[in-house]
Amino acid sequence: MKNKIIDLTQVLNETMPVYPGTLKPKFEKSYSIDKNGFAEINMTLVSHTGTHIDAPCHILKGARSLDRFPVEKFIGKAIVIPCEGRSEISLSYLKTFEEKIAQVAFILFYTGWQNKWGTEAYFNDCPTLTKEAAMWLTNFKLDGIGFDAFSVDKMGSAEVITSETLPNHFILLAKEILLIENLTNLDKLPDDIFMFQCLPLKIEDADGSPIRAIATFE
Amino acid sequence: MKNKIIDLTQVLNETMPVYPGTLKPKFEKSYSIDKNGFAEINMTLVSHTGTHIDAPCHILKGARSLDRFPVEKFIGKAIVIPCEGRSEISLSYLKTFEEKIAQVAFILFYTGWQNKWGTEAYFNDCPTLTKEAAMWLTNFKLDGIGFDAFSVDKMGSAEVITSETLPNHFILLAKEILLIENLTNLDKLPDDIFMFQCLPLKIEDADGSPIRAIATFE
Repeated sequence: MKNKIIDLTQVLNETMPVYPGTLKPKFEKSYSIDKNGFAEINMTLVSHTGTHIDAPCHILKGARSLDRFPVEKFIGKAIVIPCEGRSEISLSYLKTFEEKIAQVAFILFYTGWQNKWGTEAYFNDCPTLTKEAAMWLTNFKLDGIGFDAFSVDKMGSAEVITSETLPNHFILLAKEILLIENLTNLDKLPDDIFMFQCLPLKIEDADGSPIRAIATFE
Repeated sequence: MKNKIIDLTQVLNETMPVYPGTLKPKFEKSYSIDKNGFAEINMTLVSHTGTHIDAPCHILKGARSLDRFPVEKFIGKAIVIPCEGRSEISLSYLKTFEEKIAQVAFILFYTGWQNKWGTEAYFNDCPTLTKEAAMWLTNFKLDGIGFDAFSVDKMGSAEVITSETLPNHFILLAKEILLIENLTNLDKLPDDIFMFQCLPLKIEDADGSPIRAIATFE
């Protein structure tokens, strides 16, 4: 590979941040070289731990799980849109990127939240798409959108889960636009189009999956 | 992507085969759309479940874990070597591929064992490298070797784990040649060189990781 590769993935360990109210992952060293001659970790984690994808069936009954998409779904051209310092990502702002959006399969939104990873402030409201911005994105042939933040919707709205409280999840997943959350290193990406990939584990009926997300470019 | 992509990964579920004596994975649907408004799986699995990588520190004390390699380690040129019907993979047989081996980062060995996945016969002795063949491979700049079978060593030898009973694990991991096990679809790969990737989850101190392995070619 002469291409440059950027790792867009947060580390998985027992002290990592998790979405409030959800289980912390466990990584138990169940076998060790000293005692057993080999090392093995027994891990317990939910399908939405760390850098991960939300599948349509995470929120929509009868919708597609990650294992029902071909692998091509998880690899494609991408751009990053800088959203640092914005409270919301508006339709008018997105329209300034329209020509590039029409050429890609993935949009990654750099909110700056990656710099709050590991602090309480990470779960403060991050810049999110307005409902009309999310609806406008469904006009394009997108495979997914990603954030260096915990969600595509505001945190406060998540206590009761409906299309009113988590509008962007419902709008985007209904169109099979995958949601990629807790990315990092989005500030290290080029201004131009690059290749992005977010292959999930091949879990049967996966409503989500932790991933190793990367970007490649020349 | 105009490239063709082949998924080389076995499905993860509760009925999948696991290495004899190790824990079966659990995928508990802990939240559901009907009850909670969203679906989430709580999963418990060991670091060597399904299609996975063995890191050097799986067997060798103080050796490198998967998270300590740059992502470039897991992506590179590859060939597949057909080994169906052979009881062992000998040095003289490997030498017939020497020119190609010198050009790639990964060698995938097609043993035909992928067709036994889900049957008891999967854990019968598969074709494995002779010790001298494994040692010869350390002369090349390989990042990893993969199999559509459960191990790079014979099963019977695994009861006590030493460099005598699992020679190929020790020889190859000492040179940081990663071992990729339980691949599938190796019969669908081209005769020529293709691109292979086996990105692990970014688990801290990972002695192994389940992966979504793919091959791409034009």
